[in-house]
Amino acid sequence: MANRNLSNVYPEPVERLIDEFTRLPGIGRKSAERMAFHVLKNNETDALRLSSAVLDVKQNVRCCSICYNLTAEDPCPICDSEPRDATKIMVVEQAKDLISLEQTGVYKGVYHVLTGRIDPLGGVEPDDLTIRQLFDRIEHPERNCRGITVQEVILGLNPDMEGDSTGLFLAEELARRGIVVTRLARGIPAGSHLEFASKAVLADAIEGRQSMNH
Amino acid sequence: MANRNLSNVYPEPVERLIDEFTRLPGIGRKSAERMAFHVLKNNETDALRLSSAVLDVKQNVRCCSICYNLTAEDPCPICDSEPRDATKIMVVEQAKDLISLEQTGVYKGVYHVLTGRIDPLGGVEPDDLTIRQLFDRIEHPERNCRGITVQEVILGLNPDMEGDSTGLFLAEELARRGIVVTRLARGIPAGSHLEFASKAVLADAIEGRQSMNH
Repeated sequence: MANRNLSNVYPEPVERLIDEFTRLPGIGRKSAERMAFHVLKNNETDALRLSSAVLDVKQNVRCCSICYNLTAEDPCPICDSEPRDATKIMVVEQAKDLISLEQTGVYKGVYHVLTGRIDPLGGVEPDDLTIRQLFDRIEHPERNCRGITVQEVILGLNPDMEGDSTGLFLAEELARRGIVVTRLARGIPAGSHLEFASKAVLADAIEGRQSMNH
Repeated sequence: MANRNLSNVYPEPVERLIDEFTRLPGIGRKSAERMAFHVLKNNETDALRLSSAVLDVKQNVRCCSICYNLTAEDPCPICDSEPRDATKIMVVEQAKDLISLEQTGVYKGVYHVLTGRIDPLGGVEPDDLTIRQLFDRIEHPERNCRGITVQEVILGLNPDMEGDSTGLFLAEELARRGIVVTRLARGIPAGSHLEFASKAVLADAIEGRQSMNH
């Protein structure tokens, strides 16, 4: 495999498919070859299904116009769901975070996907995110899910520097608009061992200690 | 992520694309999600290119009718190439093996891809491979590349049990047809260390020792 100049001996369509697979995240040349050979070996129906799934996802998936979650309908099923408490908005960075939170089955409010986090060094300013649209939902209840007035915003951002600074920015702006702002609890993760917890995790756990008196 | 019942919260087209990616070899759920999000994030032209590369490979790549290598034209560029010595056929198990051999730039003959190896336990009999077609090329020179008569067959099979038994079967049948049969040399791999070589490798190297007298 040393000589890359001689490597282009696959037929052109195979090379092209390998190239396209290589563009996907986490896929190197060897994996892409294996995937291309799999497509070659399988029947045409399978290839057609993969091919059209790629196109469909671009053509039929959009952002919810209220919460910016990925959705096939607009508004998304969460914003549109009668039993969900639209007075509470959980702010998350990405649609993936929303999925993880939904999988717990614990949260019954609605969401707002920022589509990123403030990162001045990386060139991401508040206006590059959906922060303006979050404030709109709060200031104009008719733009929130089912016209309901927002009372609480829960910050569900990642517990790192950019997540924290985005959270501080939002907390200040939201408090000025008379909204209750909370954030997800920090502490020792369930199922872990204290002896392996980092200093930052233990410091959070001590500062945020929770009452056991009922 | 514990509760799989709640996991289907992605819009249907996204779930479908994730499913399709998961069918590819070596792609688990997490990688498939990352790939699907990559497609979602990228522009539509990229998705179109990937989608049509998948279809093209099925529609425009076939097996060469002489050597069963993958090809966009028939006969393939190797069978059709004037400078290649069509009196020598290297027999390989798969098109991928052919590619590896071609990358050395050393071999100037033509190929025959068996599309597998004999494996009675796995249910692969000689008739499931292109062995009949190999004999045809030998018995009927007009069916070999550019109508040239075959003189030598080089067995380029994998050095394991199935490869060896496939090789023995072919060697016997080919010898009966008056063909010179050779196989790729076995021994210590270039760049390795004797101390780490397995017993089988060293035994091959001793038995197949090569003369240094010129």
